[in-house]
Amino acid sequence: MVRYQVILAYDGTEYQGFQKQAMARTVQGVVEEALRKLSWGGTSLLAAGRTDAGVHASGQVIAFDLEWRHSPAELLRALNAHLPPDVAARDIRIASPGFHPRFDAAWRCYRYHILCDPLRSPLKERYAWRVWPSPDLARLRAAARRLTGRHDFMAFGSPPQLGGKTTRTISRAEWFEEGPLLVFEIVSQAFLYHMVRRLVFFQVEIGQGRRQIDQLVERLEAPGSEMVQDLAPAQGLVLVEVRYAKGRVDEGRPANLDNSKLK
Amino acid sequence: MVRYQVILAYDGTEYQGFQKQAMARTVQGVVEEALRKLSWGGTSLLAAGRTDAGVHASGQVIAFDLEWRHSPAELLRALNAHLPPDVAARDIRIASPGFHPRFDAAWRCYRYHILCDPLRSPLKERYAWRVWPSPDLARLRAAARRLTGRHDFMAFGSPPQLGGKTTRTISRAEWFEEGPLLVFEIVSQAFLYHMVRRLVFFQVEIGQGRRQIDQLVERLEAPGSEMVQDLAPAQGLVLVEVRYAKGRVDEGRPANLDNSKLK
Repeated sequence: MVRYQVILAYDGTEYQGFQKQAMARTVQGVVEEALRKLSWGGTSLLAAGRTDAGVHASGQVIAFDLEWRHSPAELLRALNAHLPPDVAARDIRIASPGFHPRFDAAWRCYRYHILCDPLRSPLKERYAWRVWPSPDLARLRAAARRLTGRHDFMAFGSPPQLGGKTTRTISRAEWFEEGPLLVFEIVSQAFLYHMVRRLVFFQVEIGQGRRQIDQLVERLEAPGSEMVQDLAPAQGLVLVEVRYAKGRVDEGRPANLDNSKLK
Repeated sequence: MVRYQVILAYDGTEYQGFQKQAMARTVQGVVEEALRKLSWGGTSLLAAGRTDAGVHASGQVIAFDLEWRHSPAELLRALNAHLPPDVAARDIRIASPGFHPRFDAAWRCYRYHILCDPLRSPLKERYAWRVWPSPDLARLRAAARRLTGRHDFMAFGSPPQLGGKTTRTISRAEWFEEGPLLVFEIVSQAFLYHMVRRLVFFQVEIGQGRRQIDQLVERLEAPGSEMVQDLAPAQGLVLVEVRYAKGRVDEGRPANLDNSKLK
């Protein structure tokens, strides 16, 4: 039995989130179904993050134990053959036996995509939140600078456990342009529930001049402030990367690079 | 009664092409349905191009006659309110009474998007053709240079009417990189049926070293050669722009710019 680490990409549009549910189509559900076709006998795979309904991933990380006689590259191919078109295994590595993609994560990176357009734009809105009037980029950047460092984000999300800590350290929070999109990139060891989407909504309000940066600062400096209600829609958010401390995962050549025959 | 010109964008994934069909969901079908809710009494709207099933558009052009008491900007808004999320009216102008978006077109521009990746990539494949191994960009460009100018494209498509001309003049044919994608842009007054997708497939074969540029040149210089069978899949293709000679359409300020209230 070997523990494998797999990088997963998915279009979350048609899923009720990552985490398995009895009556709903979830990413975890379809991946476990594919694994069972490869004789996986586990009860639950492990994952780095439980993305919400409609949220996408290009770098979700999962782990599972499997008896597999062939190479990891062949496991990657076999897994992809059983996954639906909107979910794909992008890379595979052998992990240490106790590796846990959630608890071992050194940091996670999310990106949120905004399209500034007064009119609907069907080819761009599947993976972006359309916003108008355009938020001012300098104001967005000024707001993002206030987010970096250690703060109590109680006003922006709930902890995974009731009564848990709401302090988080943001190692990066940046806005940049990418073609017609404005992208917010945020990196932290961990996030509160709905925190990224609340922070995006709040910053967009600042960028549009409907709020002042002071209102953000107040909420970060005064723990105990009320929870911000509005959150940016799910379709703009992508879990792009999760990183681990050295030694937890085999850092060798990624399996997808020696697979030129794959198509 | 005024003739309006409308720029249409759509995600073609869920449509059996542009042109109306009795038993299938088509773009023309849903747009005419929306127009009827605005008291349009015509039998068929006019369009610049009949895109195939699965082909997208960011700049399709349609025209229709309508009795409308308010501004064109309000018509744009009303039309969008009745269109489904994957179809949007992006701009509106008043056209001259005899304006025909197909016959009056000075040129059309299509883009084809290729993703070079050995593994499935769910967030990028809705609007691109995934290809592996990567075609060589220099070879793609060398092939595209041979396409510009006047040629008989009989081997690459059929004319709209049986026995019609197969000679077309390509004013631009270029490959460029856009993020992780390779994009082919082609401009001509008119195209043969399936011509862009056949040209893309053939060039990708050249780029991958599976064909020589001479084989392209032969087919352009020897009218009467057999039709090339393979075509690149529909989802990579977008009709991006159609241009008209001056005087056919009101060249004033586009209506979407004075609509800062729209969201």
